[in-house]
Parts: sequence; structure tokens; C-alpha cells
Amino acid sequence: MADATNAKRNKVVPDIVVGRLPLYLRTLIRLEEEGKIVTSSQELATRLGFSSAQIRKDLSHFGEFGKQGTGYNIAYLMQQLKNILNLDAMWDVALVGVGDLGHALARYGRFVPKGFRIAALFDADPRKIGTRVNNIPVQNSEHIVDAIKQAGIKIAILAVPLDVAQDTADRLVEAGVQAILNYAPTTLIVPPNVKVQNIDPIAHLQKMTYYCER
Amino acid sequence: MADATNAKRNKVVPDIVVGRLPLYLRTLIRLEEEGKIVTSSQELATRLGFSSAQIRKDLSHFGEFGKQGTGYNIAYLMQQLKNILNLDAMWDVALVGVGDLGHALARYGRFVPKGFRIAALFDADPRKIGTRVNNIPVQNSEHIVDAIKQAGIKIAILAVPLDVAQDTADRLVEAGVQAILNYAPTTLIVPPNVKVQNIDPIAHLQKMTYYCER
Repeated sequence: MADATNAKRNKVVPDIVVGRLPLYLRTLIRLEEEGKIVTSSQELATRLGFSSAQIRKDLSHFGEFGKQGTGYNIAYLMQQLKNILNLDAMWDVALVGVGDLGHALARYGRFVPKGFRIAALFDADPRKIGTRVNNIPVQNSEHIVDAIKQAGIKIAILAVPLDVAQDTADRLVEAGVQAILNYAPTTLIVPPNVKVQNIDPIAHLQKMTYYCER
Repeated sequence: MADATNAKRNKVVPDIVVGRLPLYLRTLIRLEEEGKIVTSSQELATRLGFSSAQIRKDLSHFGEFGKQGTGYNIAYLMQQLKNILNLDAMWDVALVGVGDLGHALARYGRFVPKGFRIAALFDADPRKIGTRVNNIPVQNSEHIVDAIKQAGIKIAILAVPLDVAQDTADRLVEAGVQAILNYAPTTLIVPPNVKVQNIDPIAHLQKMTYYCER
């Protein structure tokens, strides 16, 4: 019997392995939606473009999830991955910066079914403060530290302009935020206990043009 | 004297190193904007949160860009990185899917200064076809293969719903696209000569909740 929680407590799993778990979960959900009950590392490999050996090795960090020859029970493995990723209950998320991108994110329909609820919006623009996006009121980002502390929010999405990104991140850290999804095209300096993931379409495009021919 | 083009032709650089080059370039541009002429691997390390040894090793794949003790000339290293990343001229980009996210991307002001011009928009919705976003007409995605071929576009941004993502990717490949920035939350199956970079905020958030405490 796998005990994912103990596995997690007792050893350090490489960050790159942790980063693949959401992709496994996403693929398992897709397979379940297609009506499948059981899957295999081979099937996951085909869907994900990884090797089946890598998938087995990644999952083995957390326990034994399948039997040799019978594959993985999809519902069981999904539940285990949700436990490992702390997705057993909904996370409240603060979204900072309600420009074009912030607007699109505030209205993004996939957050709630995947365990994330945009619980607070912040902006510095007086014309935006007090308005609602997707029925969530936009709060004055001047009060962000107290508002996030009071709401007990631990996760933030940063969609502010570049020149205020670091300052905003500092205030999120002060408010007790543990994880920042950063859409500003800059490297944020945060304490080691705070996680940052960066989404910069330019960096992604430039990585690919290295391989492109005109 | 560095010869980045030859370095690139003659050996295979690890993909993870290529992925860090846009971050070096982004940081160099920032340093130049701050009025600096010369930088060091130590300064880049502080800005980026990498070790200075890693930065020196990454850059050494492409030649000798700095002298021991005098650091890197920022303008020169920027130009070399632009050459390596094929950013010497503007890339035309096709954006497929003009929903909330597609809208935000079509209006995103950083593409052009960083070497990417949204040259064509596509959508399947008859109410959107013929309208303009940021003065670019939305074309019928039924004609996407011919339109992209005729325009000679090699890079696409995919912002379509999940259920049509793979089919759309197949048509982009048929049209000669070499690089796809994929915002649909699924793994695209493409030929080995086509590069894909994935942006899925859910996967990024779920990677971080692994480390979070409620």
C-alpha cells in the first residue's frame, strides 16, 4: 500500500520530478474522462512524450501505485497525486494586476475545477478599484498586505507591470504568501521558503527560435 | 574571439542551457537600461538566482564572451545571444484562438520589442472572423494551412480550447510551423522537428502547492 504522505515527508524529491506530477494528473483526468479505468506507464508515456521508464521512476519516489502487469488504477493514482500535490481541498488565490492578462486570468474557467479559487483581486488603478471582474471586487493594492493576511491567502498570481513586480512580490511575501505565479518578465528575489514559477511568453518563444530556420 | 554561429553548428547544446539564454538576454537588457556597460557572472547570478559558475559554463558552450577579471561587455554579449537565438530579425507569429487569452496576447506590447510580430489571427467563431484585434484582422481558421503557408509564418501561438488543440496543432505542422507556444492544457503530439513550449498556469500552480502548507 502506497503512503504518499510519508514518502513525501521522508525524502527530498527532485524539483523536476515534482514539476511532472501535474502533467501526470492532467493526463489521468483526461483518460478518466475518456472512460478508462486502468492505465499503464506505456500509455502515459505515449500521451506525454516521456519514456515509460521515467514515469515509473518518477512515481516510485512516492510509493508503489501499480502492480507489475496490471497497470495503474486511474482513480486511485489520481487521488494519490492530488494528496501529494496538496490538492485535497480548494486553494484561495490572490490575483494582483487586473490589466488585459489579469482580466483573462480572473475569468479563466479552469482554476476552480482544478482546485484554485480566485478569492481576491488587487490593482493600483483608482478607475479599477471597486469594480468587479467575474463578480470579484477589485481591491486597492495599497492594502494588499493586510487583506491577504486577513484572508489567509497563501498563493498569488502576479500580473502587474515589470517596474512594480519586485515591490509587489515583497509585499506578498510580507503577507505570508508561499507561492507566486509570476507573469512579470523578471526574476523575482524572494526568501528560500517562497516558491516562484515564471510564465514569460517571450522567454518561451526565444527558446524555440534557437531551433528555427527562416 | 567568440564565434557563436560556429559553436552552435558544431555541437549539441543541452536544451536546458538553451532555455536559460533568454533569461540571460532579458537580464542584460535590464542592466543596459540601467546604464551599465559591463557586467560579471557574479552580477548576473545575483539577478537570476543561478550560480555564477553555471552562468559561465552555460555561456562557454558558445564561445569566450568575457575576459577573466574584466567581465562581460553587455552590448556585445546581448548581440551574441541575439545571434545565437536567431533574433537578428523580426519573426512573424500566427495567433490561433481569439478568446479572452488570445485577446490579451494579441494586445501584448512586449512581443514587437522582443522580436515577435503577431502577423495573423485565426478563430473558428463566425462572429469573430473579419473583426480586428489590435488592428489585425481575424481570419477563418478553416483556411489556416494555406494562409500560414502563403505568409511563410514559422511560429504559432495556440490559444484554442482543449478539444481542438491537437487538431489545430496538426494543421499548423502541415502549414510548415516549426515552433508552437501552447496555451492549451494538453500535451501536443508533433513531429520531432517541431518544437513546443507549454504554458499551463494550473500545472505551474500545482507544482508549487506541493511545497505549500495550509
